[in-house]
This record gives sequence, C-alpha cells and structure tokens, in this order.
Amino acid sequence: MRTVIIGVDVGGTSIKFGKFDLGGQLLSKWSIRTNKTERGEHILEDIVSSIKNHATVKTIKGIGIGLPGPVTENIVLHCVNLGWGRKDIETEMRPLLDDEEVIIKAANDATVAAAGEMYQGIAKGYRNVVMYTLGTGVGGGIIIDGKIVEGMNGVAGELGHTIVDFRHNYLCACGKRGCLETVASATGIVSLAKEKLIKSKVKSPLRRLKSFSAKRVFDLAKEGDHISQKTVEEAMQFLALSMANTTLTLNPEIIVIGGGVSHAGPMIIDLIEKHYYEMTEPFISHTHFALATLGNEAGIYGCCYLVK
Amino acid sequence: MRTVIIGVDVGGTSIKFGKFDLGGQLLSKWSIRTNKTERGEHILEDIVSSIKNHATVKTIKGIGIGLPGPVTENIVLHCVNLGWGRKDIETEMRPLLDDEEVIIKAANDATVAAAGEMYQGIAKGYRNVVMYTLGTGVGGGIIIDGKIVEGMNGVAGELGHTIVDFRHNYLCACGKRGCLETVASATGIVSLAKEKLIKSKVKSPLRRLKSFSAKRVFDLAKEGDHISQKTVEEAMQFLALSMANTTLTLNPEIIVIGGGVSHAGPMIIDLIEKHYYEMTEPFISHTHFALATLGNEAGIYGCCYLVK
Repeated sequence: MRTVIIGVDVGGTSIKFGKFDLGGQLLSKWSIRTNKTERGEHILEDIVSSIKNHATVKTIKGIGIGLPGPVTENIVLHCVNLGWGRKDIETEMRPLLDDEEVIIKAANDATVAAAGEMYQGIAKGYRNVVMYTLGTGVGGGIIIDGKIVEGMNGVAGELGHTIVDFRHNYLCACGKRGCLETVASATGIVSLAKEKLIKSKVKSPLRRLKSFSAKRVFDLAKEGDHISQKTVEEAMQFLALSMANTTLTLNPEIIVIGGGVSHAGPMIIDLIEKHYYEMTEPFISHTHFALATLGNEAGIYGCCYLVK
Repeated sequence: MRTVIIGVDVGGTSIKFGKFDLGGQLLSKWSIRTNKTERGEHILEDIVSSIKNHATVKTIKGIGIGLPGPVTENIVLHCVNLGWGRKDIETEMRPLLDDEEVIIKAANDATVAAAGEMYQGIAKGYRNVVMYTLGTGVGGGIIIDGKIVEGMNGVAGELGHTIVDFRHNYLCACGKRGCLETVASATGIVSLAKEKLIKSKVKSPLRRLKSFSAKRVFDLAKEGDHISQKTVEEAMQFLALSMANTTLTLNPEIIVIGGGVSHAGPMIIDLIEKHYYEMTEPFISHTHFALATLGNEAGIYGCCYLVK
C-alpha cells in the first residue's frame, strides 16, 4: 500500500525532507547537507538514499522536488547554486529508486513555497495565489486555478527580476538593472539604507555599525529611526508597485509574502497596502495580502502538493 | 440541430456580430450602432433582436459576448462606455432569447481579442498567449493553458494600467500616473511627441502640423524624422518593459500586438525586441512576438471561442 508522500526542498546549503500522509499531514521531517562537489552530481543519489533511510520505496505514492532554478515539465533547465545544467529529474531519479510506480514531480522552489502556503498555510482555501519570497534575493510563485504556472521556459514567477526601479538602478545579481530584487530583498534593503546614509546627514544608529542587516533596519524603523523608516518605506513602495502590476495582470485572490524579510511582521503589510491602493485604486481589486505562515516548511508542503 | 455560434463584440460606438459554424468558420458578419441612451438599457434587447434577424434561435449552440469592462463568471462589473453598472449577462439575456439551451458567455473585450487571435489568428496553435491591444488606450488579454484569465474581480489583463513610466508620469484616464497606456497608446505616442517638440529645437515636419496622430508619427519615423524616431523608440521601450515584466511573470509562448497602432507594422516588433532582450536577457525566454492578423474581427472570433 502506498501511503506516504515525500517532499524534498533542495537548497544550495541543505536539502529539507518531509514525509506526509496522503491527506497532507506532516509525519516527520529531516534534512541533509547539499553536496555540491563534482557539479552537484551526487545530489540526486543523496536524496534517494536519504529517502530510503526514512521510508520503504513501495510505500511511497510520490516524491515532489523543489529546485532552485527554472523548471518546466519535470526538467530543470539549470541550477547555478547546485552546479547543475539541464536535468531530466524523473529520468535520472527513477533508476535510483528502482520503482516504476512512484510519481516523481519537480518544480521551482519559490513556486512550491507558494503551493505549500496554498495547500496548508495562510492561503489555504484559495486557488489563485501569488507569493513573493523576500530573502537574500526575491523569488516568486504563481498559481492559477490551483495549478502552478511554469511558463514556456520555466521563467514564470521570476517576480524578483521584474523591473520596477529607475531611481537607483542598482545592478542585480542577474546582470540587469532595476530589478525588484535590488531594492526589496534583504540585500536590497541594505543597499537602500547605505545610500540614504551617504546622501543625508540625519543622525541614525545605523551610522555606528560597521555592517548591518535588513532585520536591523526593520528593527530600528520600529524604534523610530528616520533613515531606517525611509528605507523600509521605499523598499515596500517598490514591492507594492510590483504587486500592483501583478494584480493588474493576474488579479489573484491573495498575495503571500514570505522569506526572511517577512519576519518583520505586520508593518510590511501596512506599508504595502498604503502604496498598493494608490497604484491600483481605480480598479476594484479585492486582492488580499498576508504573511506566510509555514516558514521554511512551505517548500516541503508544496512538494507534497505537487504529488497529491 | 444547433449548428451555429454567434460572436458579439460590443463597443462604445458599434456592436459587431459574427455567425460561425461549429468549426469556427465565419459564415457572415454584420454590425449595428450601439444605443447608449437610458444608460445603455436597450443594448441587450438590440443584440438579441439583431441575432434573431440573422439566425433562428433553435439553431444557435451559443452566444459569446465581449464587453468593454471587467467581467468575471459572466457578470460584468461596470462598462463606463455603455453606461452600465453591474450586470449578469446570462440572467438578463436568457428571457429575451426564450431558449433554455443556448449557451451564453461573456468576457472582457480585450481578452476575447486575445482568444480570437489564439483561435483563428496569428497565435493559432499556442495555448499560452498574452495580447496587447494598442488603440486610443491599451487593452490586455491573458490566456493560460487555453483558458482566459479573468482574475478575482475581472481586473486581470489590465496591462495598459500597469505602471512602467516614472520619467514623464503623465496622468492616465484611469486617474493614476505612469500607466503603460499614457506612453504606448495612440494618445500616449502623441503626448511623447509633443513633449519632445517642446523640449528640443530639432527640426521636424511635426512642427508644421496643428495636430497629428500616432500614425503620422510612425510614418514620419519611417521617413527618417528624428523627433518621430525618438518618440516611437521611447514608446516601444516602455512597451518592451511591460512585456519583459509580463514574461518574467507568466513566460507566455507568444505576445501578440494588436489595435490601430500595430498597423505601423514590423517596425514595432523590431523596436520591442531591441529593448525586450536587454530587460530579460539572463532569463532564457523563448517568448515570440507577433502582430495580430484578425484586425477588428479578433473580437468576434474570440467570442466564438468562448462558446465552442
């Protein structure tokens, strides 16, 4: 009897696993280190061997895998973080599992996080969901009518690389300028704060720090520091612009904000809503905003959703 | 035997009709004037009576209707151009038809144009299509996996009101600033040209004209006029930005450009592609660009697609 689903969220540092029952209840979770040697060629073997340590293959209905790169129809086009080029996940994984029946599905990691929040998190009950994951970079996931949108080349949902900023025009890790990621990721928030410190003479506790994080900027903003407040306001204004444009493109039921930056809490939603309505107002959109609730587990839940 | 489908494309000036066989072949077409008196309350009666003049109700499999306003699940929320508020199209139309079996479907007009191009036009064979209709305003239509995306409140596909311009920041008809429509519609192109004429001293045949159209600007650009060339280049750069962001959101197979402005021809595609690749380059998207081929008939074809 096949009674479990395995979710596998592959990151550049660690690989998270979840074992679920067929109703999507998390039974157990564990993680292993990502072995990036030899262009990541041992990763799939490591995944399969770790799964076999935690479940009998014949009991597994399916394995869902989230990967840090563009994926279409189970084929990942490249994962720079893992050292991978193009890889057909099912074809490479099935012989390792030695089982013809287990379902194998792969999708982009930011996208499976969105699916996870829809399946068992804050977006439960919705079928049209957009998620922004604000971490070191900005990831995105789009679900329409309960189905993940991958796009023709797996580029759908690359919301962090939509161009929204012509004021600073910072160079993005992707090579373009003006991407949302350059101003609304944790890294982007630090860039904005540093520029404000240079361009203004206003006092700020930030000036006393050799280096600081986006979290510190949010904390100081809450304590009333002017430069920090201006920084988070500006970052959230860019995010609101992207969300307004997403609404005018897809008009989802809910936009979920996850990733490390989202831990700053309700302040983020307040700032987004302040600017978002100005940018969409004549169009009555009842799109709802919410902070993600599954944290790091969103990925494994979403991987479970891929299979169920 | 129900053997025909009627497509009805409702505009502020005229209502276009098409009678199709079940294979989507256009059998005949006609149009009537839009009667906007009494807040447009005679429009549905006029439509039904015109249909009855051209087909026996018992032979009609379905009627598809394109409307100039946001539509979700057959309910139009408002059509400013027609004087309409919220209207449940099926509920109001069925008693006029006095037939329980005829299928009645309504959708937004820019969206049905996209469906029309996918059904029988340049996007035939594709299932993931985005269309920009560049006329007096800018309309948009989004189709994913062969299905029209309406969004929660029918606001999906309002691509003309995504914000892309912070340079001119012209006021849009919608009340916002910086909308794509303010710089890439026929009206927007004229605004850009006028601003360039004021801000520069370069000679241009445009200076001799009391008023001019976007078509004239494109014609002069082709003839080598510097101001006109700079104008169309800038307009198409903004359009390319919106298309780049749409690609990074949905990664469609094809983006179709229709509406009056698209009659300027292949020059438009060349200018879009020039800027689009810069804005998406690190993400390998094979999204294809094409000019619409059905012209004014895209709407009725798309209405037929709603029903078939």
